Amino acid sequence: MRYIKWLICFLFIPVVVHAQQSDSIMIRKIFDQALTSSQCYQTLTELTTKVGGRLAGSPQAAQAVDMMKKVMDENSFDSVWLQPCYVPHWVRGEKETAYATSDGKKTELTICALGNSTGTGKKGLEAPVIEVKNYKELDSLGEKNLKGKIVFYNYAFDERYINQFTAYGEAVEYRWAGPSRAARYGAVATVVRSMTSAYDDYPHTGSMGYNDSFPKIPCCAVSTMDAAVLSSMIKFNPETKFYFRQLCEMKPDSVLSYNVIGELRGSENPNRFITVGGHLDSWETGKGAHDDGAGCVQSIEVLRIYKALGIKPKNTIRAVMFMNEENGSKGGAKYADEAKRKKEDHLFAIESDAGGFSPLGFSFTGDSVSINRIMQWKPLFEPYHIHEFFRGWDGADIGHMKGYCKVMSGLSPDSQRYFNYHHAASDVIENVNKRELELGAAAMASLIYLIDQYGF
Amino acid sequence: MRYIKWLICFLFIPVVVHAQQSDSIMIRKIFDQALTSSQCYQTLTELTTKVGGRLAGSPQAAQAVDMMKKVMDENSFDSVWLQPCYVPHWVRGEKETAYATSDGKKTELTICALGNSTGTGKKGLEAPVIEVKNYKELDSLGEKNLKGKIVFYNYAFDERYINQFTAYGEAVEYRWAGPSRAARYGAVATVVRSMTSAYDDYPHTGSMGYNDSFPKIPCCAVSTMDAAVLSSMIKFNPETKFYFRQLCEMKPDSVLSYNVIGELRGSENPNRFITVGGHLDSWETGKGAHDDGAGCVQSIEVLRIYKALGIKPKNTIRAVMFMNEENGSKGGAKYADEAKRKKEDHLFAIESDAGGFSPLGFSFTGDSVSINRIMQWKPLFEPYHIHEFFRGWDGADIGHMKGYCKVMSGLSPDSQRYFNYHHAASDVIENVNKRELELGAAAMASLIYLIDQYGF
Repeated sequence: MRYIKWLICFLFIPVVVHAQQSDSIMIRKIFDQALTSSQCYQTLTELTTKVGGRLAGSPQAAQAVDMMKKVMDENSFDSVWLQPCYVPHWVRGEKETAYATSDGKKTELTICALGNSTGTGKKGLEAPVIEVKNYKELDSLGEKNLKGKIVFYNYAFDERYINQFTAYGEAVEYRWAGPSRAARYGAVATVVRSMTSAYDDYPHTGSMGYNDSFPKIPCCAVSTMDAAVLSSMIKFNPETKFYFRQLCEMKPDSVLSYNVIGELRGSENPNRFITVGGHLDSWETGKGAHDDGAGCVQSIEVLRIYKALGIKPKNTIRAVMFMNEENGSKGGAKYADEAKRKKEDHLFAIESDAGGFSPLGFSFTGDSVSINRIMQWKPLFEPYHIHEFFRGWDGADIGHMKGYCKVMSGLSPDSQRYFNYHHAASDVIENVNKRELELGAAAMASLIYLIDQYGF
Repeated sequence: MRYIKWLICFLFIPVVVHAQQSDSIMIRKIFDQALTSSQCYQTLTELTTKVGGRLAGSPQAAQAVDMMKKVMDENSFDSVWLQPCYVPHWVRGEKETAYATSDGKKTELTICALGNSTGTGKKGLEAPVIEVKNYKELDSLGEKNLKGKIVFYNYAFDERYINQFTAYGEAVEYRWAGPSRAARYGAVATVVRSMTSAYDDYPHTGSMGYNDSFPKIPCCAVSTMDAAVLSSMIKFNPETKFYFRQLCEMKPDSVLSYNVIGELRGSENPNRFITVGGHLDSWETGKGAHDDGAGCVQSIEVLRIYKALGIKPKNTIRAVMFMNEENGSKGGAKYADEAKRKKEDHLFAIESDAGGFSPLGFSFTGDSVSINRIMQWKPLFEPYHIHEFFRGWDGADIGHMKGYCKVMSGLSPDSQRYFNYHHAASDVIENVNKRELELGAAAMASLIYLIDQYGF
């Protein structure tokens, strides 16, 4: 028995070696193609400078849908279409203002409303401000100390994490759930330190969600520099008051919008799908370059590379630009619903929504057998410094296909700079490096190539 | 015999496991220290904004020496001193100007003189310009076609290389040796496409070297954008003329300057040395942030981390800020000469001169036994995404100790962005990320920690 096993092994070795060599050559071609002929940086430049920030439901989001459909059409993919979905319609309104007052002296502070927040009314809102570092402090203060106050969540990123997403994961809790948590104790508003380790004057917006059991109090983010200013003021004078004015509101009616989809039809299994995507909507504080224009143009680039190299995929490969990841995820939900309704067979989905930086690897979710199979391909990626294949997360948009799509993945780029730009005015094309963006596209195209060839 | 070997193995396993665990804990402490308490970004901000560009021999270089000695003094290292060395004194003079003329129409072009180049004289120099892609084209044109002409080396980075230093290595030949190679055929000047894959309007300077057998003709670099402009003009009209004016000159006398050195004395082997360094001089076209202010402040940070964590090194650890790497390497030569003269025992040297970007690994030179020993430590660096340990290069400054220092290394950060800034006006603090800079310092401190503990 043992002898036969060995014999089988030896018989297969040349086949495996040959496959690895030809795969290695193909991956080299994919990277060469991305690094020498990609249009993705140019497309991202146009999206971010001609359209700019594009929150779901806004006229800019509609413009972005048209622009990106046109880009896909020009690439002559097998089919390109818009998948309708209804999205919430939150608007920021006039630029926000804020100041803190201590002993009659006003200090202007740089803030922005959190996504989905209520407004303060035209006159703004002023109240004594109380700083807490975390929920433990908040809970120990209780209603007695918090009623009628503005709560200032001054929770800083833990700089010790090598991956900045881990630091974000801890801190973002105060942005998302902090307002209702404070409202429960009678607080009238919240201010949160911006979600970044950069020390600068950009406020970083981002979604929050109300718990319907408590009053929907307005909430904003303050730049890290002004978080330090505000903290210093409160330390000096605990009677410091905080004033802010934001005219944002959630409009009552949802808006018709679209996922933008392009497809290369599978030559062997046209009804088996591999999805590569990013989200097209972005916060309007910046231009949505890294978050997530990058993921969109990289997804188109994957299909373009296939066409340019004349690769005929066995399965159907789709590039999807999801709508409304930032404040509702309606596009991701719609894509999954439609897939299920049409009984599409989804083999693999990958999302790029962690910035257009040098790719370091991939994170995976799904069954162990398939993921172990993928892990064996890691050596093919090592010449490109793409070393990290790990179990973990996938993506907010494709996440709606959990349990339906066999294996899912998230592109994992270097995270050091991401939160400097994330949801802030600094998320612009000037902070994207062309080659880093292209390497991310090539990484995804290579992984998809292997999955398309060998399945699981 | 076999039995005894196994027994020995088992006896040592707990010791090895324990050592690896405690090393892993210490490396974690080093990274935490760098990421939470480093002053290196602040020091780099001061160096680049208060002093700025600092070519060896310039008043700014002298200022930088004073500033960095003061920083080392303030860190209370065991000793801090200046090591004198004489450096060449090349000056750029007034800002360079250039234009191309085709059919009487002038087009301004953005250039800068190459380091060590001669000037054109106050009136400037004008001649017909001829474009070549490489030396093969140059040689085939020969004296007949090149005499009296200006040669335009339009050699672009090969974008297919994942590591940008490989592309630079190929292209820089035309900057360094191109002028004399053209002068040999009677050319009167050369223009070289800037050494970058960025497409922008920054000209990138850098050293060139004359071959004394041929006339020393003036030479400059043109921005990549204007290389494309010039190329288009020549394509349209082969009679296009190029004019440029640069008043740079090599002064006859060398200037007294210094390496700046700080030291933590070894507790067991004070006369055995580990060196960590970068170079303090920089081109004056930019502010020398990545090249190589980053390496300097990271080297100081290594020693600061040792002090902050109370680590007593067994061997003496030196941070060296070398002078004159850019256009003469006199500081590196002096350091090696002094080491030999004093019969110092140099165990290890590492240089950071590839930018303050996220570290990916280390390159090594030296004997195989020692390098194989180091390779075994790689798993300790994997949690920090520092995966690449390879044989290759070390550093231009420490390179003078080749054959004398047992093992040498170069920190190898992500290379995608380096040549966007290298030797150009864009090499400023705004293009350095604080965390990436700190991670590089922590990487070097960790490697040095292991070498200091275990030797080779």
